[in-house]
Amino acid sequence: MNPIDIQQINERLEAFAQDREWNQFHSIKNLAMALGAEAGELLEILQWLTEDQSNAIKDSPKEKTKLEEEVADIFIYLCRIAYKANINLEQAVNKKIELNAKKYPTEIAKGSAKKYSELPVVGE
Amino acid sequence: MNPIDIQQINERLEAFAQDREWNQFHSIKNLAMALGAEAGELLEILQWLTEDQSNAIKDSPKEKTKLEEEVADIFIYLCRIAYKANINLEQAVNKKIELNAKKYPTEIAKGSAKKYSELPVVGE
Amino acid sequence: MNPIDIQQINERLEAFAQDREWNQFHSIKNLAMALGAEAGELLEILQWLTEDQSNAIKDSPKEKTKLEEEVADIFIYLCRIAYKANINLEQAVNKKIELNAKKYPTEIAKGSAKKYSELPVVGE
Amino acid sequence: MNPIDIQQINERLEAFAQDREWNQFHSIKNLAMALGAEAGELLEILQWLTEDQSNAIKDSPKEKTKLEEEVADIFIYLCRIAYKANINLEQAVNKKIELNAKKYPTEIAKGSAKKYSELPVVGE
Repeated sequence: MNPIDIQQINERLEAFAQDREWNQFHSIKNLAMALGAEAGELLEILQWLTEDQSNAIKDSPKEKTKLEEEVADIFIYLCRIAYKANINLEQAVNKKIELNAKKYPTEIAKGSAKKYSELPVVGE
Repeated sequence: MNPIDIQQINERLEAFAQDREWNQFHSIKNLAMALGAEAGELLEILQWLTEDQSNAIKDSPKEKTKLEEEVADIFIYLCRIAYKANINLEQAVNKKIELNAKKYPTEIAKGSAKKYSELPVVGE
Repeated sequence: MNPIDIQQINERLEAFAQDREWNQFHSIKNLAMALGAEAGELLEILQWLTEDQSNAIKDSPKEKTKLEEEVADIFIYLCRIAYKANINLEQAVNKKIELNAKKYPTEIAKGSAKKYSELPVVGE
Repeated sequence: MNPIDIQQINERLEAFAQDREWNQFHSIKNLAMALGAEAGELLEILQWLTEDQSNAIKDSPKEKTKLEEEVADIFIYLCRIAYKANINLEQAVNKKIELNAKKYPTEIAKGSAKKYSELPVVGE
């Protein structure tokens, strides 16, 4: 899989918005609502499926295409929010992965779906 | 901004899940719910702000860090969903950008926040 | 179960907002974001549970209390939105139930999780 | 406005589900996803509107009808979740309103959109 050139995507999305005079609508608040709406469409695809059926979507071209479109929509709004807020997506993601590794130490979190705040305290 | 190496992120996230025996929880259905929960946290940060205040978050280090963490969480779950569903994120995003260009032709969509289905129909 | 006196709830919520000078934040847009954030918290409670585990929450006092609080939060924001938009909740709900009965005729929809738009067309 | 007879609504919704053999899909987990999807549709109606425009929806019959339908859909799923989890909606809502009154004392919370956890601590 090729790396994703976020800068190029940002430039395309910004040109897209400028051509349509849509930046007037693209406040970070509004973009977050749009992302929330797309997350809702993702839920709608999966809401009545069992977990196994949800995993089998990859073998159903028609359903997979729908899933792909929602995932892409969320990605696009995420890029727009990061672009408007001067967030470096790559750095933010790597920082969060490292933070999660500290929050959920392997030995403590193994096999447990508990939230960080409910896990037994580590160290001290 | 560096390109994002999705394959490397996927490998880190998969190792993270395997080390903690979390793949049992990571059905596509469950990951979509987790993404929806994170989208909710993004909304919570912005819900009482005006649009201008939401755009000014980039100048407030404390608020920007919170925004960055939510954006990263959503990105991480999006990568997990794409990984589990064999979706090529880069191709899916580029395909969707092209689709949007056809759905919202510049001349018709200019300055309008109307949905595709409510825009005047375009020629033949 | 007692009927819910929506007018009384609306009066309490409006007094609550006025006492705290919160009406400045309570645009319908903002209230919808707040409802979306609460829906996210509801998802978070349930995201790693199996369907059976989610149904068993009613037997776990601690988890049930969490669920109750989220359900109440969503109800409260729903009342606020209806109040601000002059929506008669009781009429809106009854109208929607009747609409759904027409959209999903028993014989056609039986045992199928298909959306209205994907169900076989009925009669003329 | 008439009080809402939740018991009657529950009975109608339960009969509706039984007639269509839909209870197999109505786990609390799935119903929460469906509610999240409807919350997304609510966001979609409002995402590109200014706060003032969102408040003016009550004067636009077409837009108001759309809002009414989403509000009703969310109400319906909320009733279903409460019904399946043995939650007494009226008690849960009243308890939450009282809890909020303690969490956000008038003098401290006045004019502030800060979350409970960020408000100055009150007395002992």
